[in-house]
Amino acid sequence: MKKINVAVVGATGLVGTAMIKVLEERNFPVDSLRAFATSRSAGSRVLFRGSEITVEDIESSSFKGIHCALFSGGEIASTVYAPKAVSDGAVVIDNSASFRMDRDVPLVVPEVNPAAVEGHKGIIANPNCSTIQMVVVLKPIHDAAGVVRVVVTTFQSVAGTGKAAVEELESQMSDILAGKPAHKSVYPHQIAFNVLPQIGDFEKNGYSKEEMKMILETQKIMGDETIRVTATTVRVPVKIGHSEALNIETREKITASKVRELLSKAPGVIVADQPERSIYPLPIDAAGRDEVFAGRIREDLSCEKGIEMWIAADNLRKGAATNAVQIGEILLGKGLL
Amino acid sequence: MKKINVAVVGATGLVGTAMIKVLEERNFPVDSLRAFATSRSAGSRVLFRGSEITVEDIESSSFKGIHCALFSGGEIASTVYAPKAVSDGAVVIDNSASFRMDRDVPLVVPEVNPAAVEGHKGIIANPNCSTIQMVVVLKPIHDAAGVVRVVVTTFQSVAGTGKAAVEELESQMSDILAGKPAHKSVYPHQIAFNVLPQIGDFEKNGYSKEEMKMILETQKIMGDETIRVTATTVRVPVKIGHSEALNIETREKITASKVRELLSKAPGVIVADQPERSIYPLPIDAAGRDEVFAGRIREDLSCEKGIEMWIAADNLRKGAATNAVQIGEILLGKGLL
Repeated sequence: MKKINVAVVGATGLVGTAMIKVLEERNFPVDSLRAFATSRSAGSRVLFRGSEITVEDIESSSFKGIHCALFSGGEIASTVYAPKAVSDGAVVIDNSASFRMDRDVPLVVPEVNPAAVEGHKGIIANPNCSTIQMVVVLKPIHDAAGVVRVVVTTFQSVAGTGKAAVEELESQMSDILAGKPAHKSVYPHQIAFNVLPQIGDFEKNGYSKEEMKMILETQKIMGDETIRVTATTVRVPVKIGHSEALNIETREKITASKVRELLSKAPGVIVADQPERSIYPLPIDAAGRDEVFAGRIREDLSCEKGIEMWIAADNLRKGAATNAVQIGEILLGKGLL
Repeated sequence: MKKINVAVVGATGLVGTAMIKVLEERNFPVDSLRAFATSRSAGSRVLFRGSEITVEDIESSSFKGIHCALFSGGEIASTVYAPKAVSDGAVVIDNSASFRMDRDVPLVVPEVNPAAVEGHKGIIANPNCSTIQMVVVLKPIHDAAGVVRVVVTTFQSVAGTGKAAVEELESQMSDILAGKPAHKSVYPHQIAFNVLPQIGDFEKNGYSKEEMKMILETQKIMGDETIRVTATTVRVPVKIGHSEALNIETREKITASKVRELLSKAPGVIVADQPERSIYPLPIDAAGRDEVFAGRIREDLSCEKGIEMWIAADNLRKGAATNAVQIGEILLGKGLL
């Protein structure tokens, strides 16, 4: 297989670190790897295949000679440097929200809409973490019975916010257990022993940005703007792994056992559904894994054509890094890199 | 006002302790208070109005002379001793699930169906904690626009399970922060840094007992069996205070501002709804309070006649102790004690 030059932007963050790990684990055909970050982290080192790579300052660097750049440095980095990377000749797989809803930018989950990469014009967007894990389980149900409406409530880990949030959760826990007050700086409220119904800022309609991402990105990835979605996104004191309660209304009646059967065969899904033995998806079990775990599958008692489900996935991996590397694999497979 | 003799059964548990505190705080006209528990806790002491009361062994005690007995000793204690208390002449306000769905037993939330106490035959049931806080906010909406369907997802604190669960959460947190493995005994999985989509055992239809309580009790309290409810109930690493994401479909269109207006005037509700200033209900703010906090009120983008809402309440107080004492106050007011 052709070997390619890869760059990871935001290489020292939680997602960037996971990207480098996933590139290595999946044996992505990397010829050379370059790591970029802001000047604050430039000069530090990251490990790839046993070798140390010095992190370069994104501001003073060129993307010339790079075939594929994985961006996970946040919206500003993507907005400023992704177009530069493209003009330098790289294909960008961007984990930020900057380009996701652009008509010219494919928004791709490999298990759902791999063919969408074909129309790319230099940038392919990696969807929001909560959206990715949801559409992976919605797709087989949509194909079989037509998804009409989804009511989703999320339980999102602090890793989705970044390293500082994980540290804040741990330090608040320590302080509270020691009888000391909890200091907050990352979140507007204490996250330890609490849950926060806010992820991102709020729109005028009362939904948060994260909730709007789940609504709009789902329609784009599924290629069906008639799918109605509503979301309540909530931060919980979990380190890694997002969980979601999904209420799914379908056009045709579908049984819980049929959903279980479909998901058992679906790519990237593991069915963990023996509640009587306390077997169901858990964020601590999903952490470190690439699959979406699905369970608590049951027919909705409030809606004739409804399915209730509980899912969990590693938001840093399938929700970000793994999905981005999978997009790279598809590009390679199609000769688009 | 007439002074009455009160008993608290399960007096050393979290809810029993809260009951004694709430009786005192609300200045319930207690003449004498007796405290009961199992033999394991008998002989210990509880504090009421500055005096120590010795806990009596429930097994060897009589309820003669007691006007009102508040039960919070679990299903077995209620099943065995509540009928005994009634035959000894007491009116029982029972916090267990034992009698809630009995046709002869009123299931009462004072803000919703206070008149239901009138038909009592000795036992009045206190609803499930998650159900209580939900119906308090559903009622004004139902009266104004007709609630057709509710999709609820809960975030329930460990205090709902009892003292041992609070201790387990804290010890798991300490152990994990110290790099040690987390021991579990109360829950089937680690609860620290995790969320568990299981509260109670499971029914054949895939719903948990807690979820079925929310479905069936809501219809009974609201006095309307056409209200369709589906629930996913989840334990989260919060000490005290349950939160819920509610998706409410109504018969008539109702705006978010109308819901806010209705709830601002509703008994037992505090509207905390300025998300742009990060003001919304939080379990740590609801802990220690008697009201249900409602916020994140918005019109559902997926359903023309839908409302999304986020609520939080103290599950030991409004979800149990306060609601029970309020039932006692209604009985007193109606001359039924």
